[in-house]
Parts: sequence; structure tokens; C-alpha cells
Amino acid sequence: MPVPDRTGLKIVDIDVKDVRFPTSLGGHGSDALHTDPNYSCAYVTITTEKGSKGYGLTFTCGRGTEVVVYNVRSLKKFILGKNAADIFADFAGFWRAITNDSQMRWIGPEKGVIHLAVAAILNSLWDLWARLENKPVWRLLVDMEPEELVSTIDFRYITDVLTKEEAIQLLKDKNNGKQKRVKYLEENGYPAYTTQVGWLGYSDETVKELCEKYIKLGFTHFKVKVGLNLEEDYRRCTQVRKYIGKDRFLMVDANQAWSVNEAIDWMKKLAPLNILWIEEPTSPDDVLGHATISQALRPYGIGVATGEMCANRVMFKQFLQSGGMQYCQIDSARIGGINEILAVYLMAYKFNVKVCPHAGGVGLCEMVQHLQYWDYASLSGTMEGRLIEYVDQQHEHFYDPTLVENAKYLAPKLPGYSTQFLPETLEKYTYPNGSEWQRMFKEGIFPPPDDTELANI
Amino acid sequence: MPVPDRTGLKIVDIDVKDVRFPTSLGGHGSDALHTDPNYSCAYVTITTEKGSKGYGLTFTCGRGTEVVVYNVRSLKKFILGKNAADIFADFAGFWRAITNDSQMRWIGPEKGVIHLAVAAILNSLWDLWARLENKPVWRLLVDMEPEELVSTIDFRYITDVLTKEEAIQLLKDKNNGKQKRVKYLEENGYPAYTTQVGWLGYSDETVKELCEKYIKLGFTHFKVKVGLNLEEDYRRCTQVRKYIGKDRFLMVDANQAWSVNEAIDWMKKLAPLNILWIEEPTSPDDVLGHATISQALRPYGIGVATGEMCANRVMFKQFLQSGGMQYCQIDSARIGGINEILAVYLMAYKFNVKVCPHAGGVGLCEMVQHLQYWDYASLSGTMEGRLIEYVDQQHEHFYDPTLVENAKYLAPKLPGYSTQFLPETLEKYTYPNGSEWQRMFKEGIFPPPDDTELANI
Repeated sequence: MPVPDRTGLKIVDIDVKDVRFPTSLGGHGSDALHTDPNYSCAYVTITTEKGSKGYGLTFTCGRGTEVVVYNVRSLKKFILGKNAADIFADFAGFWRAITNDSQMRWIGPEKGVIHLAVAAILNSLWDLWARLENKPVWRLLVDMEPEELVSTIDFRYITDVLTKEEAIQLLKDKNNGKQKRVKYLEENGYPAYTTQVGWLGYSDETVKELCEKYIKLGFTHFKVKVGLNLEEDYRRCTQVRKYIGKDRFLMVDANQAWSVNEAIDWMKKLAPLNILWIEEPTSPDDVLGHATISQALRPYGIGVATGEMCANRVMFKQFLQSGGMQYCQIDSARIGGINEILAVYLMAYKFNVKVCPHAGGVGLCEMVQHLQYWDYASLSGTMEGRLIEYVDQQHEHFYDPTLVENAKYLAPKLPGYSTQFLPETLEKYTYPNGSEWQRMFKEGIFPPPDDTELANI
Repeated sequence: MPVPDRTGLKIVDIDVKDVRFPTSLGGHGSDALHTDPNYSCAYVTITTEKGSKGYGLTFTCGRGTEVVVYNVRSLKKFILGKNAADIFADFAGFWRAITNDSQMRWIGPEKGVIHLAVAAILNSLWDLWARLENKPVWRLLVDMEPEELVSTIDFRYITDVLTKEEAIQLLKDKNNGKQKRVKYLEENGYPAYTTQVGWLGYSDETVKELCEKYIKLGFTHFKVKVGLNLEEDYRRCTQVRKYIGKDRFLMVDANQAWSVNEAIDWMKKLAPLNILWIEEPTSPDDVLGHATISQALRPYGIGVATGEMCANRVMFKQFLQSGGMQYCQIDSARIGGINEILAVYLMAYKFNVKVCPHAGGVGLCEMVQHLQYWDYASLSGTMEGRLIEYVDQQHEHFYDPTLVENAKYLAPKLPGYSTQFLPETLEKYTYPNGSEWQRMFKEGIFPPPDDTELANI
């Protein structure tokens, strides 16, 4: 077992910060339902007795971050005073305890604010573990024996489609060639696609410039936001298709704007533009709706992609069972940490559904690259039709930022999960007392928060 | 339109309190997953310029209440300074605004902590509206024209099964006889069932005494908690069946303890005891799992009941579409207020599924009776096979407590939604500063909270 020695690993501190970036100023990240996101996160730092640290975060969109931060505080009791080595030795047990406290589970269970808070804490634990092993998270995962890896997963509520024993077998079947695939990853990286040519807040000229820029950078897959106005969508998508040519791929993303029938009608009209997938056509909770849409769009060669707001492994299970998801867009910070995400990868593999992770925001690229690397090396063994979303913003705030070259995510090399912020980022962007926020309040760029929006207390 | 005059209705204050009752001391409310609940709530009071008040709450189980309270604070900006009459005049628009803020929706959307907080606020608005009209909520609802009532509902994501126009028509079709049904309700009340004979924390003797007590009180339907141990369940259910006789009804509740296949196996073994329904057999998010269980148990005459932890109308829609729910157990405080609950009642009626509301806890009986009364008068027009859950605890804390006589909920008569606490209750049970909590901390009955559990700051 790669579980580290217990000495000095008692967790003696857990700190949580509300960190926000003023991304709404540039129209970055704007879509049909999220018109002015300030990309943000609840940022957790855990410290052990001997001084080792783990850094974890969950992504948010600005307002509301304070609630997640507050919920992390309420979960401190599950981690303070515990020995990290004991947690890793029975990681599934710890996961069950923190997600299913007999009183707190009522406010979830395993969804929304409390699950985001759990994600931030779990991410910090995985970061700590990898640092203790002196490995990037993806290598920690790849180097685990199938039994060890699977021991971190709580299989409750998914055994009707995947048992622990089956999961172990799936991994054993791919043990052969794992080291070769690791080498391939280290030498070649992992394909990325760009969402950056088509935010709804961008002007036509910006879209054109960005298409040209990303073609030059080697990108072959381009995603455009849609859903506010059909004619406008058709016009914008026609432009992008013209700029990227016939042989590159075009995906569209409605960010939950439509009802089920509206999604089908709308997409049939965009179909002549040769669309690879429609992402989040309707409510992220509507498994059966996605299945209906998938079936209706299959004749047009359009797949349905979703997952960034999928609440937990039970919802993913149903999207996979129902045929409602042709592209599984796992998010690294919405569900309960790597433990639960591994379960989703394993189920997706069993259902032969491609995982194309959601990324962007704050730290999502940094984290999810590790997971997709692990998937290639240890589980799926292929990159065919698989890509990681890429947005080149907010990377400059991290010690170990995502590196994308020639439209490939390069292998993370430093120990951990790549989500430690630089000290100057915390000094500037901690909300609302960071120096940049104070400056923007003073200059009237943003109104100062009222007392209901203060988590850093 | 029953929308009141705007004068003096600007909302000038919204107060929220963490109120907890030490119910874990008696083993009340204990089930397979909730072993020590302290029934609690986030309690909202809104005040208008002219001094009128609205009281609303969302139920919780103890720890975690502070997070919901904190989230209500974060939502104050959506209500403070608004005129209540304007809210009622475009209630669906207000609902969309508070549930789908472009930044905050990321931490839901429409589920978990933020949706519980929304529920508490919406409940206080409906209470205010009914008080302004000088009617109990159920009469406010019954007296609305179909168009008015339906105008409070946001139909986004459910139009594939129910449109606004259809909803209006369903209500119009039942306009005939409405006043007769109102009179019937006022004279006869609405049938209740009891959950009080079979909490897992109760001894055999207690169970026997309680069965005898509730039979004497006129109850015909008895619910028992199961899910920890099959032999023990069989033994307890056999006892209860013996005490209540062949002609009364026995329901069981697993509170999400099982996987899908486990639920089927377990219930087949309990089937000889003639079980009316199995409640919450597995994850509350597993629509397809419930459909599988429903199908497997149909030959045994066992229906599947769920809903108290169903996250929102989109999830209810799917439970209804898939045949995964034969008894729809709407909860009055988990989803987004009466606005969203009406949508669920309308969908259930269309799918011919009986609504048997979840109640108990704190204030849930008080609220849900109003909804079921409305359903009988305005929508379903029948009580056949329908009952409201009843637990006779925590009623003494309310100004206008639920009255159950001869196993019938008597008609609420006072204006509002029946959830205003008595002042002495707030003085005693506000957490952690209430006098009863301070006493219990001092006497070592409960440990005092650490600083992570304090919402009343």
C-alpha cells in the first residue's frame, strides 16, 4: 500500500478562503445562463503536525462562494485531529463518514453546497497524499495496484451497474502496457480542445481573431456557446465553421438553456453545420430528458455531452444507463473528490462512453489533467475521440500551472494536484479583503459586499 | 387577482434563526441512516414597512442547519427592499430570479442547501400573502382562479410533460364541486397515517404500546422503519402486523439504506407481511433504480414511495415519467416553496400517482396539510388511497399547531401557513444561545458547539 507512515501526519489545521477573480469584466465565461461569472473558488489548506500541506479547491462563479466556504468550516470536525495516514488507509470509510453524517446528510445528501465543500476538502487530501509520496497525483493513481485504487471508492448505490470486484478486474485487464502508456503521455501529452473562441460576451471580430489564433496553436476542436437566440447562434456558428474549415470539429454548449423539445428543435436547425456534440442542452438533473434528446439527435450525428453540473455518481450512473450521455464531462471539483470521480470513470468505461472532462474556471484544468492522464494509462488505454477542455485563464495564479503546447496538455511533473496558489494571488484576490478587490471597490468597478456576503470572518 | 395593495408592503427586514430541538435524546426519528436526529429548522421572519409579518421555515436534522441559515443570509439581497405585492404579482418571475442568479446557481442549481434556503424564504412569503388576505394558505390557494394559481409556477424544464395551458385546464376541469369539497374538508378533515409506532430506536414494549394507542386513536395505516437488519425487520414487522391485525395497513421505510438489488431481495422477504409501500428503498437520486424496484415489486402488491429528499420538480418529473414512484411524498420544505410544489402536484395528477405527503420533523405537518387540502378541493378531488403522514411531536411550539383527531387532520383556520413559533420556543431552542441549550450544555447532556457550528452571529 502506498499509505505513508503515520508519524507527524495528524491534521492540526484546516484553513479555508474565499478567492474570487473579476472575470466578468472581460465577458470571459459568459453563457446563456451565466451572464457575468466572477470565476472563484473555496480554497482549502490542510496542515499536518510535521508541517506538510495539502491544497484543494472547489470552483464557483462568484456570489455563493461564501456559503461553500462556510460549509467547509462546518465540516472541519471530520478532519481536524485525524491522522492523514489513517484516512488514506480507509479512504472509502472516511468518504462515507464525511458525506453521510447522520444529521448533516439531510442538507444534501451528496449534492450542491455540501458536496462542493466535501470536494474541496477531499481534493486537499489527495494533494497532501501525492506530496507525501513525492509524485504528481496522476502518478500516485497510476502506481496504485487495482485493489488499492478501488479501495478508495464507496460503491454504495452503484453496485447494480458496477461492483468492487468488477472494477478491480477492469483495471487488472489493463495492467499490461501501462508503463508504455505512461511514457507516451510524458512524451506526447494529452489532446485539448478550446472553448475560447465563442463566449457569448465576445464580439464578432474577437471570435474571428481567436479562431485564427487557436488554429495556429494547433487546435482541431472548437466549442461555441449557444442558447440565447437561434438566428444569432446560427450566424455565429456559421462564421466559426467558415473560419475553422470543414475538417476541424465544432461543438456547441447551451448551458442548460432549453426545455427538452426546444433542445431537439434548436439542434436540428444547427445540424447542417456539422456539430460533434451539444453540451448541457437542458436541466443537468434531467436524465430522461437527455436520453430523449440523444435519441432524437442521433440521426444527425450529434452527440449529447453533460456532466459539469451532474450532482454525484448516482446521477452519472443513470446518464450512462439511459443512453443520455455520449460524452461524459466529469468535473474535478463538483462531486466528492477523486474517490467518487474514479467511480464515474470506471462506469463510463464499462458503458463505453468517452470521458471528455470539463475544465476552465479556476484550477479545473490543473486538476482534471491528472485524472485524464490516469484514465489513459490505467483504464481506457486510448485517446480516441477524447479531449480535455482548455481555457487559458487563471493559470498564472498557480505554482504548478497547466501547460498546453500544440493543443496538448503536457504531463504535470511536480508533486501534488497542481492547485496551490501563489502567495501574491491570495494577497490580491481573497474576497473581499484582498488588495485588488479593495482597489476595485474604491474605484467603483464593483460595489463592496454587504455583510451577507462575507465568509472570511 | 388576489394580489394585495402595495401600500406599506416593502420588505424592510428578513431575520433568520437556527432553531434546534433535542429529539435525539428520546430515539425519536431514528432510522437506518439518521441515527440521532435533532429535529431543527432554519426559521425566517420577514417584516414589511407597515409591520405585517411572514414566517417560514425549512426543516433540518441538527448539524448543518447553520449552513442553511448562512445561505438564507446570502439570499437576503433578493428580497430586501422589494415590495411583497410586486413579488406576488409576478411570483414565477421572482422564483426564477432567486433560484437562478447567474452566479449563485452554480452552487445548486435548485438542490441541496441553497434550495432549502430558498424554501424557507418562499414559505415565509406565502405565509405573509395568506395573512394579508386573512386566510389560511389552503384557502388562499383554493380561492385562486386557475390562471392566477398557475402564474406562480416556473414551468422551465417540465414542459415536456406539462405545459402552463394544460395545468390551467386540469384545474378548470375541477372547478365544479370545489365549494362542496371545501365544506367536506371543513367538516371531516383529511386522513392521516402514523409513523410513530416503529422508529428504530424504540424498544419492543414501546412499539406494542404505541400500536395499541394509535389503533384506539382511529389510525388505520402504520409505518415502520426498516433497513438495518433483515431478521430484525422481519421480527418487528411481524409484531406490528400482529398488533394491528389483517385489515389495517402496514408500510415500511428504509430511508435509503439499500442498493437497488438489495432493496428488491429484502422486500421480497418482507412481502408475506402484506406491505402497502416501501419508502425510500435506495438513493433519493436514483430514478431508474426506483423504476427497477417498482417493477420487481409490483407482483407482490408493494408500491414504491419516495419524495422527501427529491431535489426538485425535474427529479419528480422523472420519477413520475419512469414509473419509479407509486406514492409521491412531497415535502413542504425541501423544494422551492409552494410555487414548485404545485408543479409537482399537477404532474402527479397527470400521471395518476397518489400524493401522500411527507411530514413530521418540525413544522412539516403544519405546512403540508394546507397543500393536501388544496389538492383535494382544487385538483385531485379525491382522498382515495391518500393520507398525510403524522407524527405528534414539536406541534406545541407553534401558534397554530396541527390538530389531528380520529386520525384526521382538522382544517387549519388561522390566517397563514401555520408555522409561526411561540416566543418561548425561540427563547428556549434557538441554537446555541437558547436557554434550554445553555442548560443542556451546562449539564453535559450535549457538548457545546465549537465555533464552526455557529450561525446565529
